[in-house]
Amino acid sequence: MYRSRLKGKLDKDALKFLSSISDDLALLYYDIVGSEAHSVMLYENGLIKQQELKKILNALEGVKKQDLKKLASEEYEDIHEAVEAYVVEKAGMDSGGKMHTARSRNDQVALDIRMKIRDDINDICREMLALIDTLVKKAEQNKDSAMIMYTHLQHAQIGTFSHYLLSYADALFRDLDRLYICYGRVNQSPLGACAIGGTSIKIDRRKTASLLGFDSLVENSIDATTARDFMVEFCFGLAMIMLDLSRVAEDFVLWSSSEFNYVELADEFTSSSSVMPQKKNPCPLELMRAKASMSLGLLMSLMGTVKSLPSGYSRDLQDTKHILWQSISIAKDSLKLMRFIIESLKVNKKIMFESAQNSYAVSLDIAEELVKKGIAFRQAHKIVGSLVKTASDSKKSLAALNEQEIKSVIGKDFPAEELAKIIKSVDPKSSLEARVSLGSPNPKEQERMISDRKLKANGYRKGIEKRAKQVSDAFDSLEKNVRSQLS
Amino acid sequence: MYRSRLKGKLDKDALKFLSSISDDLALLYYDIVGSEAHSVMLYENGLIKQQELKKILNALEGVKKQDLKKLASEEYEDIHEAVEAYVVEKAGMDSGGKMHTARSRNDQVALDIRMKIRDDINDICREMLALIDTLVKKAEQNKDSAMIMYTHLQHAQIGTFSHYLLSYADALFRDLDRLYICYGRVNQSPLGACAIGGTSIKIDRRKTASLLGFDSLVENSIDATTARDFMVEFCFGLAMIMLDLSRVAEDFVLWSSSEFNYVELADEFTSSSSVMPQKKNPCPLELMRAKASMSLGLLMSLMGTVKSLPSGYSRDLQDTKHILWQSISIAKDSLKLMRFIIESLKVNKKIMFESAQNSYAVSLDIAEELVKKGIAFRQAHKIVGSLVKTASDSKKSLAALNEQEIKSVIGKDFPAEELAKIIKSVDPKSSLEARVSLGSPNPKEQERMISDRKLKANGYRKGIEKRAKQVSDAFDSLEKNVRSQLS
Amino acid sequence: MYRSRLKGKLDKDALKFLSSISDDLALLYYDIVGSEAHSVMLYENGLIKQQELKKILNALEGVKKQDLKKLASEEYEDIHEAVEAYVVEKAGMDSGGKMHTARSRNDQVALDIRMKIRDDINDICREMLALIDTLVKKAEQNKDSAMIMYTHLQHAQIGTFSHYLLSYADALFRDLDRLYICYGRVNQSPLGACAIGGTSIKIDRRKTASLLGFDSLVENSIDATTARDFMVEFCFGLAMIMLDLSRVAEDFVLWSSSEFNYVELADEFTSSSSVMPQKKNPCPLELMRAKASMSLGLLMSLMGTVKSLPSGYSRDLQDTKHILWQSISIAKDSLKLMRFIIESLKVNKKIMFESAQNSYAVSLDIAEELVKKGIAFRQAHKIVGSLVKTASDSKKSLAALNEQEIKSVIGKDFPAEELAKIIKSVDPKSSLEARVSLGSPNPKEQERMISDRKLKANGYRKGIEKRAKQVSDAFDSLEKNVRSQLS
Amino acid sequence: MYRSRLKGKLDKDALKFLSSISDDLALLYYDIVGSEAHSVMLYENGLIKQQELKKILNALEGVKKQDLKKLASEEYEDIHEAVEAYVVEKAGMDSGGKMHTARSRNDQVALDIRMKIRDDINDICREMLALIDTLVKKAEQNKDSAMIMYTHLQHAQIGTFSHYLLSYADALFRDLDRLYICYGRVNQSPLGACAIGGTSIKIDRRKTASLLGFDSLVENSIDATTARDFMVEFCFGLAMIMLDLSRVAEDFVLWSSSEFNYVELADEFTSSSSVMPQKKNPCPLELMRAKASMSLGLLMSLMGTVKSLPSGYSRDLQDTKHILWQSISIAKDSLKLMRFIIESLKVNKKIMFESAQNSYAVSLDIAEELVKKGIAFRQAHKIVGSLVKTASDSKKSLAALNEQEIKSVIGKDFPAEELAKIIKSVDPKSSLEARVSLGSPNPKEQERMISDRKLKANGYRKGIEKRAKQVSDAFDSLEKNVRSQLS
Repeated sequence: MYRSRLKGKLDKDALKFLSSISDDLALLYYDIVGSEAHSVMLYENGLIKQQELKKILNALEGVKKQDLKKLASEEYEDIHEAVEAYVVEKAGMDSGGKMHTARSRNDQVALDIRMKIRDDINDICREMLALIDTLVKKAEQNKDSAMIMYTHLQHAQIGTFSHYLLSYADALFRDLDRLYICYGRVNQSPLGACAIGGTSIKIDRRKTASLLGFDSLVENSIDATTARDFMVEFCFGLAMIMLDLSRVAEDFVLWSSSEFNYVELADEFTSSSSVMPQKKNPCPLELMRAKASMSLGLLMSLMGTVKSLPSGYSRDLQDTKHILWQSISIAKDSLKLMRFIIESLKVNKKIMFESAQNSYAVSLDIAEELVKKGIAFRQAHKIVGSLVKTASDSKKSLAALNEQEIKSVIGKDFPAEELAKIIKSVDPKSSLEARVSLGSPNPKEQERMISDRKLKANGYRKGIEKRAKQVSDAFDSLEKNVRSQLS
Repeated sequence: MYRSRLKGKLDKDALKFLSSISDDLALLYYDIVGSEAHSVMLYENGLIKQQELKKILNALEGVKKQDLKKLASEEYEDIHEAVEAYVVEKAGMDSGGKMHTARSRNDQVALDIRMKIRDDINDICREMLALIDTLVKKAEQNKDSAMIMYTHLQHAQIGTFSHYLLSYADALFRDLDRLYICYGRVNQSPLGACAIGGTSIKIDRRKTASLLGFDSLVENSIDATTARDFMVEFCFGLAMIMLDLSRVAEDFVLWSSSEFNYVELADEFTSSSSVMPQKKNPCPLELMRAKASMSLGLLMSLMGTVKSLPSGYSRDLQDTKHILWQSISIAKDSLKLMRFIIESLKVNKKIMFESAQNSYAVSLDIAEELVKKGIAFRQAHKIVGSLVKTASDSKKSLAALNEQEIKSVIGKDFPAEELAKIIKSVDPKSSLEARVSLGSPNPKEQERMISDRKLKANGYRKGIEKRAKQVSDAFDSLEKNVRSQLS
Repeated sequence: MYRSRLKGKLDKDALKFLSSISDDLALLYYDIVGSEAHSVMLYENGLIKQQELKKILNALEGVKKQDLKKLASEEYEDIHEAVEAYVVEKAGMDSGGKMHTARSRNDQVALDIRMKIRDDINDICREMLALIDTLVKKAEQNKDSAMIMYTHLQHAQIGTFSHYLLSYADALFRDLDRLYICYGRVNQSPLGACAIGGTSIKIDRRKTASLLGFDSLVENSIDATTARDFMVEFCFGLAMIMLDLSRVAEDFVLWSSSEFNYVELADEFTSSSSVMPQKKNPCPLELMRAKASMSLGLLMSLMGTVKSLPSGYSRDLQDTKHILWQSISIAKDSLKLMRFIIESLKVNKKIMFESAQNSYAVSLDIAEELVKKGIAFRQAHKIVGSLVKTASDSKKSLAALNEQEIKSVIGKDFPAEELAKIIKSVDPKSSLEARVSLGSPNPKEQERMISDRKLKANGYRKGIEKRAKQVSDAFDSLEKNVRSQLS
Repeated sequence: MYRSRLKGKLDKDALKFLSSISDDLALLYYDIVGSEAHSVMLYENGLIKQQELKKILNALEGVKKQDLKKLASEEYEDIHEAVEAYVVEKAGMDSGGKMHTARSRNDQVALDIRMKIRDDINDICREMLALIDTLVKKAEQNKDSAMIMYTHLQHAQIGTFSHYLLSYADALFRDLDRLYICYGRVNQSPLGACAIGGTSIKIDRRKTASLLGFDSLVENSIDATTARDFMVEFCFGLAMIMLDLSRVAEDFVLWSSSEFNYVELADEFTSSSSVMPQKKNPCPLELMRAKASMSLGLLMSLMGTVKSLPSGYSRDLQDTKHILWQSISIAKDSLKLMRFIIESLKVNKKIMFESAQNSYAVSLDIAEELVKKGIAFRQAHKIVGSLVKTASDSKKSLAALNEQEIKSVIGKDFPAEELAKIIKSVDPKSSLEARVSLGSPNPKEQERMISDRKLKANGYRKGIEKRAKQVSDAFDSLEKNVRSQLS
């Protein structure tokens, strides 16, 4: 439609290569709403007549009823052209031809993307809160789930399964907060920046921004049409979610192995093997790790695309949509599935406890008891290290060492009898109760944190719904305006 | 179909998350052929009866006629299950239930992927040769296209447009060679490795390999089912193509700017603007740069997916298909479009020549003339550097400097009169003719290289077609075998 | 020092492979301060005696005077071990051996990194503000620098060089804000989380946090020792800066080519060629693009490292320091150099203006004039598009078209005479003055934005200095405390 | 030294930013040798006099004795300038000033890099062969190490530890082959391409290539100075090695956990904890995973750097050296350490066997026995699946199921008595012996593969040493030539 200077149509293969129509369908709704707001503003500022406005709005209503497949039939390079062509055809050149006054696809596509991902951010934040709720609830149900905690995949200290769940929730809160803040940078209107340098037509940028529920403007016209950092930041935020989910997935894949056997996925979230009848594979978790890699690669594609690009719109930017849409799907689907998996997860508390009891993971607890008796920690560390060596060489637990054995190891560093008592007094339960530091898996600390995280989640929930309402109120209001023009 | 140990079906969302059916449709043909070869081998080794073979082959024929959409209706986790389920249904459990004897999805999917990308490599190599042909031909038509050559985007030496085209061809030859070698690593059969550890059934791995046109086997059963390096290497090869195309695209985007104005894309490969009527945007080239970033990101996704994965199949590997398919499409489409663009490219030789003539890009030629008169190069470099400074300060060309000006710059380092003559004798044409080093843009060197590259391309062409024939002969032979069983 | 359970020393090659000492030297200062605060807290909570505290603090003073090279002589796996070993040696096991009470390297290294990058963020924010100041000042000096604006590297609209500079400033403000917010997530103390599960010793986590100038705690002990998202977010923020700088670099590389010739780098920021005497290469800008790629790769390394890592410290995390330190250097150096380059940049306003005047970049302005006369924009776009085609076919400017030519193109769509007048009335200067939309390069809009950005920069400056003061006040206070103990 | 056109020196910060001297030190040796060969060629082609040659060679000898630190003292932008400046100073402008005749830093740096990484490839190939030797030898010692094989980290089939080791060797063979082929693309001389367009001086490119031990030339002068695909391909090859090592590392980290307890790292390759006395952490393996991520990020940096770069040398390319040097170190160090770790690895065969015996990993073996009795595999899969379900519900092994239980599960599908016999006859040892397919962990297959891999390694070894000799012969010959000139 715009090829007045160029001869003939685009080559068929070139059109196929260039067209973003299939990615653009996700923008169609926003493109229409954006065009409505722009047209209303043009009318309110005397730039088009009421009769022209009506025809435009009427044609835009028609687009809504269009068959998407037909629209996407690759006749146009993008959705903006498709919509305008329809409007010009239906409303006539004299009216429809005015819709694109003081607007370019360059500010228009930035506008559409911002409106779409504004909604996406809210949706994903809701999914995150649902997952956080599930984690906190599952933690609440498992406060007493004593288990070994691992560093370097080696036995470290006694902890609880619930403490792990709470640590996931805390990480997700930060991921959530990153998206929450990103929203502020997304929710600014670029409309009116036009191609790159604004316009001589007396438009009202603040008016369209307000009609569309934006907080403010991306002022500088070059910046408004060039910048994609809001997309990159969002894409990064999504990748961060996936990194955290990949960690949860890894923990659970390990723990659902026969060797750990701490948790068991519900059957409906596992796959079997085509040849090995005994298999119960934690496939969705494995795939979530792959999706995290996918998400990283997409971020890299996006950042690589904008790197060293000159200022002003370049067609390279078209692919940023395709990349981001994929990232959004990955995060949405993964968050949801992780929630289902955790909700239905079977926790083998008994096995967890026995493993803890039979491990050397209480070593630090013993060393700390020695510290309380006045031994320097570094010395206590050495004493217990030697005990572990002795015990493990003879494949015994620490509690199974007799006084003689203890004495032969520690000499006169500490009374063997007293140490033997200390060792016997330490078990997973006592270990957890003795843990007094803030943020530890001590049952009371867990309770405090559970209450606190519930409050925190509610705070975010309110903020998100308030934002969502600001947008839906603006859209409702715009729709009423449109209706009243058309009635 | 395989959930004998597990209760009930997969959760609906989990199935959607896990299913690779849509990516698998690209494997369907290969899955069927692979199953045919496997079944024929089972029969020939006395592991199933002829009647059973017939039923299986008949059912597989049925799959070929199946509606793809129905097959992909997300009822199954993957194409292998879908096909086997169909075969068991049609051929009955007694016969159809034997098709999966001594085979697992783990070796099967590796087999299917290898067969598919074997064809993809050949296809892409053909596309590369077509592009190389076009480059060489376009170079042949433009051997006399004197133009400035750039380093740091600054004027460097006099060269020709055709010399650039030949440099692209040479880079593409290396890209081609990488895929050509990768083919050897792809064309090995994993079939018979089963789940991870082979089988106690007396199969003949060499037989199935031969029936399917493979050169050899991936022997070790863990390796055969775990390794995806053949996919990564291919994906890397595709990214390398895109890197080279992104460079060509960048050169052409620059040269088609108004400021350079050396080349002009045919109208059918440019887009216009929705607001700026004068625009003629080189969109496909810009997008090709973005696709190069996409290709890099995909490579990163793929490598990130296999990083630190334990040995043996993990579900993470499923996503490697999705990633690679995307990479393949990007490279195929981009190669084709680049060929069209170059074929139809308008070369503004006159402007190229004038820019060359008015530039300081002959400075090195002048310095080398001084060298031939016995001046040390470093000294000659200084002399000409000072001349350029004087000339550029007064916005003159070197040829416009008079003897007096030259003398004031160089003093007694060299006779000014003689230098003035040298300067005047050097122009783009003489510069190119004087260039004597092997591989330079000297017209005769170009002619030599053009002939040579044509031969080289033909050599690859023969090799590729020979390989393709090996596969198609094997497939034809297998099909005859199947037909004879079914008749 | 900790190998009580293990036989003998680390293998020499393994030590070299494992040691992070060289990266750790950047943490030494923070490690000492952190140990001081921890020891003071232990004393204040009755966990060590004053005499023991004195000995520890005295030994820590000794570390400060140590020869860094000796410390880094690869005898230790990391700086924490090196420092503790020194303290135990100097203060004796009875006192020095108590320093590590209720602390692990796992929370300690997280603490040190957080303290270091807290300072780094402030430093980089200051560098960013200095660059923003320079951009705004340079813009102020060049408000009248009419030039062509580009989209797709093709002539788009008339703008100004200063408007570009302001768009860079606006992008950098967002980059700045991202770091500014990241600081909040960094400035939380993990100390007291110990190995992974807290401690049974009655420490006061809030006290150490306050002694070290932190805002709050990372509560959950697993989270505090596992999470590296604060590093990833910072690394991402740095990559975003580099992406924006790469864009500025690309613009300037293009504009300093002979073909554009809009800007000229000061000689002291360009390199010459070893053979081509005429060269003046914008090397620092080119290298800045490479550094942006480096920065992306580092981000990918970092994110890839934490992907799918199980909860709890794993040694993989060690390399995150090396990665981040590199990213920090890249951003710091690049910001500084970009500032110098812009400060000393020569702007060729005359050439800019002439290029603008001779271009078709006023086409949209003309079309908008037609709109003001009542022509539908889409129609106006067509009219001007046809005019450009006619003009460019005969290599004329639009202003050079005579009425007859205009008429032959536009027929009766619009009076040719009137259109000819419009065309003649539009030049770069009038175009800019007519541009009325908010955020356009209109001189008054620029003035408004310049004032506004100055205010905005000052706001950030105050916030950063306030934060820096909170940290330095805490450190001063701690130092006094230490001094008083030692005196 | 080259700034004849430019005023004054580089800005100090710019010099620091631009200088690659520290990375270049690794090239110094090659730069000197390259300059020797170039000078000898100039002399042999009558382009410089013997006396001049002698002075140049003499000065180059002086560079060899230079203090590297002084050379790297950041006075020069790169090593090429530093060396030439020294030569001009020592040999005088009249002679030394001729060394750079018909040469540019653009072809020179490509030459130096190619010579350096030619050696690096050989070194790394040698390290790979040493690791492969170790793997094969360790496999040979552990042919009888029955253990569970895993897919999805779940029990799959019975295999052996040695079979895993052999699968690593096979993957490494492919990694080796990739580098082996890459060498061919590296070992081509770019010298004589000059800045970008060759020279009018009658040089002999084939002569310098031969003097320096190259196989052939990179002909096209643009290609020779622009292309970095040989570096990218090498960097990719290194990343592929690291991906395979990361997998080995992951397997061993898992298997050295208390839960698996299959292998134990020698004490000298493990680290302890600063607080948990019982810890024995597999730190080098964890770090190797991180290094794999580092290696991927470096590849991304490198590919991102060359993406969309225009043809001809741009300063961006400077950073490719820094990136590649890091990749090389990572791979070299990791290969060596992995070799040490495997050599000293303790294998807990007894625990492996017991785990195998107590698992359901024989399920497929049982199903295959049923197949041999005529049951369709899909049916056999169902039967055994149901048995596993029954057994696992009551936490029994399959062998512990009595006939009654078996009957209740399978009904009349198969005689329960016979099935019970089959189950009892299957154990890890019989399972391995029954495995007959090519490439399975059957002891005889392993022996065959071990012999074969030894031969294969020797083949590569010979090829590598032959290549190395070609280079060292050329260098020796050149040195003699230089000596004879200087004597």
